[in-house]
Amino acid sequence: MKVWLVGAGPGDPELMTRKAWRLLSQADVILHDALMDVDGMKQAAPQAQWIEVGKRSGRPSVEQAFICRTLVGFAKRGLQVVRLKGGDPSIFGRVTEEIEACRNNDIEIEIVPGVTAACAAAADLQSSLTMRGVSRSVVFVTPRIGRRETGTPLEWLDSAMAADTAVFYMAGAQAKTICAAMIDAGKSGSTPICVVESASRSGAKLRLTLADVVRHGIPGYPGPVCMLVGEALANAHDHQTVVTHTAPHTDIAFQAQTLDLAFG
Amino acid sequence: MKVWLVGAGPGDPELMTRKAWRLLSQADVILHDALMDVDGMKQAAPQAQWIEVGKRSGRPSVEQAFICRTLVGFAKRGLQVVRLKGGDPSIFGRVTEEIEACRNNDIEIEIVPGVTAACAAAADLQSSLTMRGVSRSVVFVTPRIGRRETGTPLEWLDSAMAADTAVFYMAGAQAKTICAAMIDAGKSGSTPICVVESASRSGAKLRLTLADVVRHGIPGYPGPVCMLVGEALANAHDHQTVVTHTAPHTDIAFQAQTLDLAFG
Repeated sequence: MKVWLVGAGPGDPELMTRKAWRLLSQADVILHDALMDVDGMKQAAPQAQWIEVGKRSGRPSVEQAFICRTLVGFAKRGLQVVRLKGGDPSIFGRVTEEIEACRNNDIEIEIVPGVTAACAAAADLQSSLTMRGVSRSVVFVTPRIGRRETGTPLEWLDSAMAADTAVFYMAGAQAKTICAAMIDAGKSGSTPICVVESASRSGAKLRLTLADVVRHGIPGYPGPVCMLVGEALANAHDHQTVVTHTAPHTDIAFQAQTLDLAFG
Repeated sequence: MKVWLVGAGPGDPELMTRKAWRLLSQADVILHDALMDVDGMKQAAPQAQWIEVGKRSGRPSVEQAFICRTLVGFAKRGLQVVRLKGGDPSIFGRVTEEIEACRNNDIEIEIVPGVTAACAAAADLQSSLTMRGVSRSVVFVTPRIGRRETGTPLEWLDSAMAADTAVFYMAGAQAKTICAAMIDAGKSGSTPICVVESASRSGAKLRLTLADVVRHGIPGYPGPVCMLVGEALANAHDHQTVVTHTAPHTDIAFQAQTLDLAFG
């Protein structure tokens, strides 16, 4: 009995690893997050049963306990089970509960790493997250806003300030608050910040400054947003609209989806 | 004219992305780092000219300026040029000089992200780098040891202390100093630290504590070493010797190597 916990990468199905693709092709059942191009990924495994268990805003989310029970149940029936997670399973993938559920049921697990959104965002921006003499550390962080007043230290802010480059995951809605807090804590308002929507796929890739974001905020985007802060981003390549290199996926289906989930 | 800057992933050729594999198969010439399983990767592109330009200890390294000139020269001759880098290009990949060289010569670039060593190490350890309620931030850092006495702040230490999980790249030789500095700065000696050699491939995967490392150091390993520190690693799965899931690579050559370089 075995469950594979597999990173699907940032969105573009071609940025899945060859191993992930092979494991999908051998799977009986695939429990997957709300991924950006699940149809593209399904080409790896038309034979399998694909079950979405991801969180999507505006819909009731599947309970973690249910996901764990389902993984264990399928594995015990002798099925080839893949749990497909966006990005890399170890970076904000909430994989711990699923590992424990399998271990508690004597089910072997194997984790297959994937490309995390920060790396895909840097690639879109034609930038590095580290740079000789400029950035020797990069932190990935999810902020929990609004706790300074309770006396609890803002750990997310401390970690973002201490690293040379900071990448915020799942933080688009708090962009203004985050940038204001970084300036309050001592960052220059001219520090570059890049906003990347739907890394590795079509979507906005903006280069701004912390002060710009405090002044104007950022648009509300339909896709997932990464924010990258630091001098390493000074020469990032920004594009307001489409990343041309993901052209094979900027198809009609994607455009329709964008229309459904209109800007703002 | 175009140059592709491509992440090769952590070492296992099956952890290359499908896109990296395709680009290799279409390349005329591939300038590559000193990668762990270059023979496995060459299967993607037997047609191409493979040129190693990586740094390897004990050998004179190829100058960055030479690499840049070579990339530009090949691209100007109209060849399909891939610059293949270990891990992900944006994480300690020193990609900035090469991007600039191409831009200065009006050569288009495209970066293809890859799986970085930290994610592969976490997968080997069957662990997450983040964990609900335990770790909301993870920093990747290369330490520059021995500067506190000059009055320069130890930025690497500040960033490692501020994040919930810290992953040290290229730091195996400084393990003892790093762990001692973290304890001095306030971390508990019982904090879990995992030492992962040759992530995604055969090699030692150890779970220790900061105090263990200060007391005994870690062995000198032949492969690249990542060190992962933090409570998120508390349930990491350690293996003194071989990662069984990379079985295709645990060949006789590797076993001989393990015997040569026994623990301690």
